[in-house]
Amino acid sequence: METFVNVPEGSHFPLQNLPYGVFERPDDGERHVGVAIGDSVLDLAVLHERGLFEHDALRDERPFDRPSLNAFMSLGRPVWQAVRERVTRLLRADEPALRNDEALRNHALLARDDVTMLLPAEIGDYTDFYSSKEHATNVGTMFRGEENALKPNWTWLPVGYHGRASSVVASGTDVRRPCGQQRPDDNAPPVFGPTKLLDFELEMGFFTGPGNALGESIAVEDAEEHIFGMVIVNDWSARDIQGWEYVPLGPFLGKSFATTVSPWVVPMAALEPFRTGGPEPDHEPLEYLKESGSHAFDIHLETAIQTEVMNAPHTVCRSNFRYLYWSMEQQLAHHTVNGCNVRPGDLLASGTISGPTPDSYGSLLELTWRGAEPLDLPGDAGERTFLEDGDRVVMTAWAEGDDHRVGFGEATGRVLPAR
Amino acid sequence: METFVNVPEGSHFPLQNLPYGVFERPDDGERHVGVAIGDSVLDLAVLHERGLFEHDALRDERPFDRPSLNAFMSLGRPVWQAVRERVTRLLRADEPALRNDEALRNHALLARDDVTMLLPAEIGDYTDFYSSKEHATNVGTMFRGEENALKPNWTWLPVGYHGRASSVVASGTDVRRPCGQQRPDDNAPPVFGPTKLLDFELEMGFFTGPGNALGESIAVEDAEEHIFGMVIVNDWSARDIQGWEYVPLGPFLGKSFATTVSPWVVPMAALEPFRTGGPEPDHEPLEYLKESGSHAFDIHLETAIQTEVMNAPHTVCRSNFRYLYWSMEQQLAHHTVNGCNVRPGDLLASGTISGPTPDSYGSLLELTWRGAEPLDLPGDAGERTFLEDGDRVVMTAWAEGDDHRVGFGEATGRVLPAR
Repeated sequence: METFVNVPEGSHFPLQNLPYGVFERPDDGERHVGVAIGDSVLDLAVLHERGLFEHDALRDERPFDRPSLNAFMSLGRPVWQAVRERVTRLLRADEPALRNDEALRNHALLARDDVTMLLPAEIGDYTDFYSSKEHATNVGTMFRGEENALKPNWTWLPVGYHGRASSVVASGTDVRRPCGQQRPDDNAPPVFGPTKLLDFELEMGFFTGPGNALGESIAVEDAEEHIFGMVIVNDWSARDIQGWEYVPLGPFLGKSFATTVSPWVVPMAALEPFRTGGPEPDHEPLEYLKESGSHAFDIHLETAIQTEVMNAPHTVCRSNFRYLYWSMEQQLAHHTVNGCNVRPGDLLASGTISGPTPDSYGSLLELTWRGAEPLDLPGDAGERTFLEDGDRVVMTAWAEGDDHRVGFGEATGRVLPAR
Repeated sequence: METFVNVPEGSHFPLQNLPYGVFERPDDGERHVGVAIGDSVLDLAVLHERGLFEHDALRDERPFDRPSLNAFMSLGRPVWQAVRERVTRLLRADEPALRNDEALRNHALLARDDVTMLLPAEIGDYTDFYSSKEHATNVGTMFRGEENALKPNWTWLPVGYHGRASSVVASGTDVRRPCGQQRPDDNAPPVFGPTKLLDFELEMGFFTGPGNALGESIAVEDAEEHIFGMVIVNDWSARDIQGWEYVPLGPFLGKSFATTVSPWVVPMAALEPFRTGGPEPDHEPLEYLKESGSHAFDIHLETAIQTEVMNAPHTVCRSNFRYLYWSMEQQLAHHTVNGCNVRPGDLLASGTISGPTPDSYGSLLELTWRGAEPLDLPGDAGERTFLEDGDRVVMTAWAEGDDHRVGFGEATGRVLPAR
């Protein structure tokens, strides 16, 4: 299956992917839903206006002529599938409708370099889970000691918390070093100032589709119907602020200053070929969390750091989405089992995804073991325990096919000095 | 100062109050912003259309012809003040513009009994603090023992957490008893089922105005500019679900099934006469939380329960907003000190407001001391430890003036059986 659009070798966006994003057109400043293909973006609002989507549910809707994916997410999986099939067809080398219409092509196919990518959804609520056993164990060991590392509830339910939706930003947004209370000396009062322990957290997240009404729930076997697609998430963390504030109500200002997401939402249909088994559970879960089949995905994850004196990012962590103990379906079933309603465009993130080996740990906290083992950076760049001003963090993710990659692009952000 | 509209004795809504709400008109189903006066609601969209608001900021906006207060909240305090002055004037007995225009009056003044009240804002983010020292001490004692009750951070910062925005509902919405994991026996696996420990939490909350950009913060002395007004909040809680899930990331499903708010947002200008001092702090706070003057408000709070066999609600708790240790300004300054952005329509709640005496405790958990001391209900209604199906919880709040009350109306909800 080939497309008439040029897709460079190693591109994250071949015809097999077709992720959705929201972008601003350089010509008229309009904000539309588009699909990435190679180095281009295909404007779905333009195609829709030309009558190229014939699905009933789309006839009276304008889900692509919008500054967010929420309306499209709300339409549900049959519509997502129909649109995906239609876009695939229109981009195929043997389909003339778009290929041979030069005026349409010029208007609908834009260079990705020329457009500004925006946050893909208006996020009603953002939830962050804690679903990597390796991460929970590492952090628990450091914060509470080895014996108390994994709390008794951890293997029974996907532990999670409500995050801050307002400060979720699109990739490329600079991140201001936060100020806050810290208590470096347990025998002295806390102090106020810029965080000294600024960290990244390598995560993946998914956006929800139709969702459920308040008081109802989504069964684990139906959860797929409500998972629109996935993005990379960098859950920036200020460890000193977090460590002082988090008992007993959980993380708050140590996280709420910024969360970066990649701009392209990879649909679950594109990830289907990469479905695989996850870790063996420690014990059977309760009935509402039981599922059969394979619910993990083989998605390679990397985090790189580029300091101000470096010419290119240096990879400091290689992990994989399949390490997660709890699946997205289990997370969604758990989240709604009490009747909590999920709406189109909600973001549910995995928590830091650490693997079994030290080079697969998804945060500097773990990679440097709370600063005890600094990371060596190449050349004259010295070493890092936590992030310094000017550092750029680059996260990337992809699933490796036979002769192509289904990728997520990047989630990047640069650290600005505290105000 | 009198109004030509009838205000019954003891009404929560005299001319001194003028709270804002969103309602659905019975005639055309339109959703507008209105103001409560006596037993009536004044439709501000109708007045605006008639050209009765002349403020520059309102000329090209239609902030009242909307299904939420967010647009009006975003305009800022000078506009709020101008609208309040205008509405006060229009309702005065000595002002003919509305009083003498029968057609306008019939269209703009509706019986409150005839309209449906809606959630006052589209809540972008909902934050719940934990700012009553008595409540934090009571709950901490029960969950972690007396010595560990108040964590060391509590007197240094307003502890809070992100709540779930999607499940905040308007007063009158029934609340389905949630299901979830509980672990009644520490030596056995957890079990799944309807919560056995369903509780209310008596809180107050405030909606934010313009807010701050990401990376900036709101100084404690500027916080008032961003506080639009207050509502009653019932933060329904499932204590068994909460107790099992909340370590280490805080409350999640034990709270996210429903949060009820009263429909009328009382503007801060109406509460100004009831400003008073709060509790003496245990020690000086850090600089960014320091404030001079009085920042508490003398607002009387009550919670009543009406079971299915009772003819009227029975008051089980009498508390006061002035018991809170941390002020709203301190909460907002703390929330944004790390650069976290607050948007118009965000809801920041106080946490349960318990007073010093046992009859002032703001939750059944505290009132019955975790079920050990059941509450006696009148007549044949028996006793209560936690809420049972069919129970209706009624919260009310008012500030007592010389010859009038500035009140909040009610926040009510009835418990439906688990699904």
